[in-house]
Amino acid sequence: MPAPSALRVALLGCGVVGTQVARLLIEQADDLASRVGARLDLVGIAVRDITAPRDAIIDPALLTEDARALVERADIVIEVIGGIEPARTLLLHAIASGASVVTANKALLAEDGPTLYRAADEAGVDVYYEAAVAGAIPIVRPIRESLTGDRIQRVLGIVNGTTNYVLDQMTTHGLAFDEAVAQAQELGYAEADPTADVEGFDAAAKAAILASLAFHTRVTISDVQREGITKITADDVAWAKQTGHVIKLLAICEATEAGVSARVHPALVPLDHPLAGVRGAFNAVFIEAEAAGELMFYGRGAGGAPTASAVLGDVVSVARHRVLGGKGPAESHYAGLPIAAPATSRTRYQMRLAVSDRPGVLAQVAQVVSATGVSIEAVRQVALPDQDSRATSVGSDGSTVALLVITTHHAAESALAQTVAAIADLDAVQDVMSVLRVEGS
Amino acid sequence: MPAPSALRVALLGCGVVGTQVARLLIEQADDLASRVGARLDLVGIAVRDITAPRDAIIDPALLTEDARALVERADIVIEVIGGIEPARTLLLHAIASGASVVTANKALLAEDGPTLYRAADEAGVDVYYEAAVAGAIPIVRPIRESLTGDRIQRVLGIVNGTTNYVLDQMTTHGLAFDEAVAQAQELGYAEADPTADVEGFDAAAKAAILASLAFHTRVTISDVQREGITKITADDVAWAKQTGHVIKLLAICEATEAGVSARVHPALVPLDHPLAGVRGAFNAVFIEAEAAGELMFYGRGAGGAPTASAVLGDVVSVARHRVLGGKGPAESHYAGLPIAAPATSRTRYQMRLAVSDRPGVLAQVAQVVSATGVSIEAVRQVALPDQDSRATSVGSDGSTVALLVITTHHAAESALAQTVAAIADLDAVQDVMSVLRVEGS
Repeated sequence: MPAPSALRVALLGCGVVGTQVARLLIEQADDLASRVGARLDLVGIAVRDITAPRDAIIDPALLTEDARALVERADIVIEVIGGIEPARTLLLHAIASGASVVTANKALLAEDGPTLYRAADEAGVDVYYEAAVAGAIPIVRPIRESLTGDRIQRVLGIVNGTTNYVLDQMTTHGLAFDEAVAQAQELGYAEADPTADVEGFDAAAKAAILASLAFHTRVTISDVQREGITKITADDVAWAKQTGHVIKLLAICEATEAGVSARVHPALVPLDHPLAGVRGAFNAVFIEAEAAGELMFYGRGAGGAPTASAVLGDVVSVARHRVLGGKGPAESHYAGLPIAAPATSRTRYQMRLAVSDRPGVLAQVAQVVSATGVSIEAVRQVALPDQDSRATSVGSDGSTVALLVITTHHAAESALAQTVAAIADLDAVQDVMSVLRVEGS
Repeated sequence: MPAPSALRVALLGCGVVGTQVARLLIEQADDLASRVGARLDLVGIAVRDITAPRDAIIDPALLTEDARALVERADIVIEVIGGIEPARTLLLHAIASGASVVTANKALLAEDGPTLYRAADEAGVDVYYEAAVAGAIPIVRPIRESLTGDRIQRVLGIVNGTTNYVLDQMTTHGLAFDEAVAQAQELGYAEADPTADVEGFDAAAKAAILASLAFHTRVTISDVQREGITKITADDVAWAKQTGHVIKLLAICEATEAGVSARVHPALVPLDHPLAGVRGAFNAVFIEAEAAGELMFYGRGAGGAPTASAVLGDVVSVARHRVLGGKGPAESHYAGLPIAAPATSRTRYQMRLAVSDRPGVLAQVAQVVSATGVSIEAVRQVALPDQDSRATSVGSDGSTVALLVITTHHAAESALAQTVAAIADLDAVQDVMSVLRVEGS
C-alpha cells in the first residue's frame, strides 16, 4: 500500500483550544506536511451549534453538527470537547472506524482510559493524549517513550495551575485562602465555582492518568485519595516558610510494596526541591526513575495556545505512524499491579501543636508519638512570631501557650491517625493546629 | 513483509554507559519486547580490546574488535564510543548497511550531524540521539516531536553539569573558582584537565545540536560563540546575589532577525527564573515557544545509568519504527536559516565599575554609555560590603572608591564593546570590574 499523500483530520469541538488547533493546522500546513510526509487536511469541525459566532480563521463550510458522520470520514480525530459523553462514544466509534485519536480529555481518560487504549490496540490505531496532563508540557511522551527502558519509582506533580497560583499568592503575599481564590477568579485563573480545582478533583484525574502511564496499571480517578487545599490557612503557609518549606498541592503516584498508590493532597515541599520553585499558575511534574534519576518537566498547564501545541505534537506523531502504515508502541500493555490501600501509604508528617508552656510537655508529647510506633525525626519548640495571636494567649490551664513542631520519619497513614488522636487527648495539648505531609525530601 | 520477531542490536563501546545499556537490554528484555513488538537481541559489542576486564553482566562471547563487521549484521546500532572517528565512519557504514542508529556522541553530532541525518533519510532509517544533549533528560524528543507543531523562539540551557556544580559551590559556599574546581575534581564531577568543561567546549557542542534541532538549521560547533567560566570570581558571584541574580553558564540558541544565534557564556540569571534553581551538577533546558510558552526540562546531564536510560528510550522508538517497516519523522528537513554574526547578538548587560567617589561621576558614566547608543535601564551606586578590600582603598586620584552597577537594556554585542572601551577611558573610572550578560528576564 503506497503512503497516503493526505490524511483527513476531523476536529471535535471548537472552543478556545479547538480554535487554536485549527489555526495551527492551517497556518503551519506546509511545515506539518513536510514533517509528516503527507498533508493534513482538516475535513470538518463538529460543534453543537453551527450558528454560534466563531473566530475568523474557522471556515464556516467546515462546521457540522453531525459528529458521528464526521469521524467516519477521518483518518485522525482530534477531540477537545471534554467530559465523558458524548466524547467516549464518539472516540470509540472513531477507533472502530479505523481512525487514530488525539484527545485532551482528562476526565474521560481518568474515568475510562483503558477501554479506549484497548480498543485502539485491537484496531491497530493510536490514542495520544499529551494535552490531557499538564497542558503544553511534554510529559506523556517522555514517560511513554523516553523512559520506556527505565523503571519509574515515583511521580510528584503540580498539575493544577489554579491551586498553585492560590498557594503561591498565599506564600508570597501572605494572603488568606479566600482572598487568594478571589484574586485568582478576578484574573481568570479560577472558575466562578472553583470546587473542581481547590478540592483536588482536577488534579486527581491527572494523577490517575499519570499513575496508569508510569506503572502500566489501570488506575482510575476513584482509586485516587484526594484532599484539597481549602483547609490551608495563612498560618500554615507562614509556618511552612519558617521550617524551610513551601506548601504545594501535589499529585503523587508511587509504586510501593503494597501496590500502586495515587493521591492528591497539600504537602510541605523543602525549599531546595525543584518543585518548590514552581510559581504562579505553572505546572511541573517531577519523576524519580531507577536509571534516569530525578527529572522534572515544567511549563504551562492550561490555556488555548499551550494546549493546542501539545495536541499538534500528537497529531504529527499519529499522522506519521499512519503514513508508515502502523501505530506507536502498544498502550494497553499492562503490568496490572494492585492498587495500594490508602491506609498503607507512607510519608513524613509535620505536626504543629499549641501546648501549655510548662516543663515536661515536649517529652510527654514525644513519648505519646513513639508509643504509637511512629518514629520522630525532630521536635522543636518554636518561638511564636509577634503577630501570632497565640503569642500572648493564655491556655485553658492558665499557663501560656508554646508551639511544638514535630517532624516524623516515614509512617503509614493509619499509624499517624492514631498518633494524632493520642496527642489530641493529652491535657497539655491545647490544639493540634495542623498536620501536613512532607514530600520531596 | 511480516513484522520481524526479533531485531539484532549491536553495541559500539563498552565503557560506563555501554555496560549500563547492555544491562538494561538484558534485564528488561521482556518488557522491551512487549513495548516494541519484537525481541531486541544483543548480537555483539564492539570494543578496542576484548581482553580488558568487564562487568559480569557482559557475556564475553558477545565481544568483538571488528566493529565494521558487527554493524553489517545489525538492525540497530548503538554508538557510545564518542569522538569523531572511528564513530562517524562506523555510523555511516551502519546507515549504508540499512541499520538504524542511536548515538550519545555529542562531539560527532556538533561537528557533522547533518551528514548523518541526510544519510539516514536517504537510507530510510532513523538517527536518534537523546543522550547526546543533557543526558537522561528527554529534550531531543520533545523538541523533535512534541513541539513540532509549534515555533521555538529561544532555548536557554544549563547543559554542563561540571560548570553548574562549580558555580553552585561558589554561590552557596563563597568558594573561589579554583577551590570549587578542585572540589569538583575530588568528587569526580570534573576531569583532571577540566578545560573542555570550564572553557565551555562541551556546552558549545550541545548548543550546536540544540540550535540545529530547534530551528531546523545546520549549526555546527564552529558557529557557536563561546566563553567559559574561568574569569568568574567569588566577587562576581557575591555581587550577582546582591543584585538578585545567580551566575550560570548558559547555552543560548535564538532565532533572531539576523538569523540563528548560538552562544555559550556565563550569564546573570534572575533568582526567580526557573533556571536559577538548578543546583549542583544538574542540567536543565528552558524553551520559549510561540504556542507552548515557557517550558523547562530538568535532570541529570551525565552518568552511566541516566545516559543509558536515554539511549534505551531511543532504541525502543527506532525498534518500533522498524517493526512497522519505516522510520520516524525526517530529520534532515532544514529550514536553512542563516547563522547570525556574533556581533549582532543582543542581550542585556550588567557592568560593575570601581569609580572615584566624588560628585558627578555617576552622571558622567551614564552620559558616556548613552553616547554609544546603549540604553541604560538602571545605574546604582552600591554600598561596598565590609569584607571587600576596596571598601577602604583609595583610588589613584586620592579619592575613595565607590561602586557603580549599571544595567543596560538590550544592546548589540558590538555596541557594548564600544561602550566598555569608552567607560574604561574615563579618568574617574578606576576599574571595569566585570561585564556580564543578563539572560532570562
